[in-house]
Amino acid sequence: MKYLRVGPAGHERPIAESGGRFYDLSAVTADITGAFLAAGGITTVDGLPDIDITGERRGAPISRPGAVLCVGQNYAAHAAESGAQPPAEPILFYKAPNTVIGPDDDIRLPRGSRRTDWEVELGVVIGRTARYLDSPASAAAHIAGYVLSNDVSEREYQLDRSGGQWSKGKSCETFNPLGPWLVTPDEVGFPLRLRSWVNDAPRQDSSTADMIFDVGYLIWHLSQFTVLEPGDLINTGTPEGVALSGRFPYLGAGDVVEMEITGLGRQRSVVTE
Amino acid sequence: MKYLRVGPAGHERPIAESGGRFYDLSAVTADITGAFLAAGGITTVDGLPDIDITGERRGAPISRPGAVLCVGQNYAAHAAESGAQPPAEPILFYKAPNTVIGPDDDIRLPRGSRRTDWEVELGVVIGRTARYLDSPASAAAHIAGYVLSNDVSEREYQLDRSGGQWSKGKSCETFNPLGPWLVTPDEVGFPLRLRSWVNDAPRQDSSTADMIFDVGYLIWHLSQFTVLEPGDLINTGTPEGVALSGRFPYLGAGDVVEMEITGLGRQRSVVTE
Repeated sequence: MKYLRVGPAGHERPIAESGGRFYDLSAVTADITGAFLAAGGITTVDGLPDIDITGERRGAPISRPGAVLCVGQNYAAHAAESGAQPPAEPILFYKAPNTVIGPDDDIRLPRGSRRTDWEVELGVVIGRTARYLDSPASAAAHIAGYVLSNDVSEREYQLDRSGGQWSKGKSCETFNPLGPWLVTPDEVGFPLRLRSWVNDAPRQDSSTADMIFDVGYLIWHLSQFTVLEPGDLINTGTPEGVALSGRFPYLGAGDVVEMEITGLGRQRSVVTE
Repeated sequence: MKYLRVGPAGHERPIAESGGRFYDLSAVTADITGAFLAAGGITTVDGLPDIDITGERRGAPISRPGAVLCVGQNYAAHAAESGAQPPAEPILFYKAPNTVIGPDDDIRLPRGSRRTDWEVELGVVIGRTARYLDSPASAAAHIAGYVLSNDVSEREYQLDRSGGQWSKGKSCETFNPLGPWLVTPDEVGFPLRLRSWVNDAPRQDSSTADMIFDVGYLIWHLSQFTVLEPGDLINTGTPEGVALSGRFPYLGAGDVVEMEITGLGRQRSVVTE
């Protein structure tokens, strides 16, 4: 199943997509929440009204997460371009949950920003509480689905203005375009190709096969340190090809950032002041 | 006004305290939420039913925050005991919001933890959205109140197991005892004395006058990097006297941690496996 949310920001309606058609979930759930996902979502669109969503704004495919966990430097080539060694254990930091926006919403440059950067990432949405999981293999039962996520980052705020704690450059308004779809695991075939473009020029092009720690390992590992709850979002790290590498300019007003992950859809974000 | 919440975890009822008596707020609001605080809370207990809360569990005085922001090394003596220089700008990191528990709930040691530590802190709860504030002076209008907060920390997870990102040692289950009260600014007179004890032996004893960055500065500063929303909690940093200093043992099962801040009440947490 694919879930999405359409409508004005803050007033999105829950939708399911199946076979290229869209079905209104409003009679089943008020929103795509952790509780809806924990209850198993829906398994069929039979009996649901199909609707036309042409021209409607696409929101993030889940309601605001209780937490947005991020994994740092989970691709060796990105760790290298950032000037770091690959980590021995997953690096965890958080973004403010109010950074989550729709996949086509504008990315606003923070005031005075000079180093705003893109990061295409595989997002994982938790479907069942995960606490001290026994093994990476047991993580699968805790995943509601996968989602395309842009972990937008202001490098000066991240690296130079918070004593080494990254979150200050990760939590600016509009810094987490998400979606278009939340896709349930049965419809996702790994490995996935992750790509990003700025003004149509390619930037990132890698595979989840290059992750240092795979999704099961990450969820198992994180569950030893915190309680993952239904609806929480995990951004699993970005591959090489960001501006921080020095190979590309940082984002400026008017730039267009596009991203795509196999089977998870495509985003298009205009950068504004 | 003082707000509190009493009742079983997850089913707390909103209460106001005035003149040593307690008043049931259930007819006014379902909970002490960001929306309730943004609407100004209540200004009088006239007409509210007074109730007896003897023997009831005290919950955190606010519903689960949208974000828990933490400021690191905001007292010079604590920065020194941590082996760091005082920061030139506030250091921001986040805790998972599901760490917030009641002021007398047990602190559970994470499995295998050897370095779990206490941190008494002044917590600030946001009452009005703060975004690019003009000045530290303008922050006051965005504060709903103050609260006693224990920013419990596992130092090995914080410092050695996350590539320098502290949140992995800050987000374990039960790691943010909060309360007993949310006290509105009109009832709080700075500076405040912050104290903590372990098994009745004194640990921390400092004053908010020793903060490197005061509350107004912190809110102004953070509002340049993220959007602070009603109900968000800011832990404003801990003073010297934690186990990380090497002067005291870390917490073990059976230890009792107590904390107090002038006018904000007292916590008593039993440490369990």
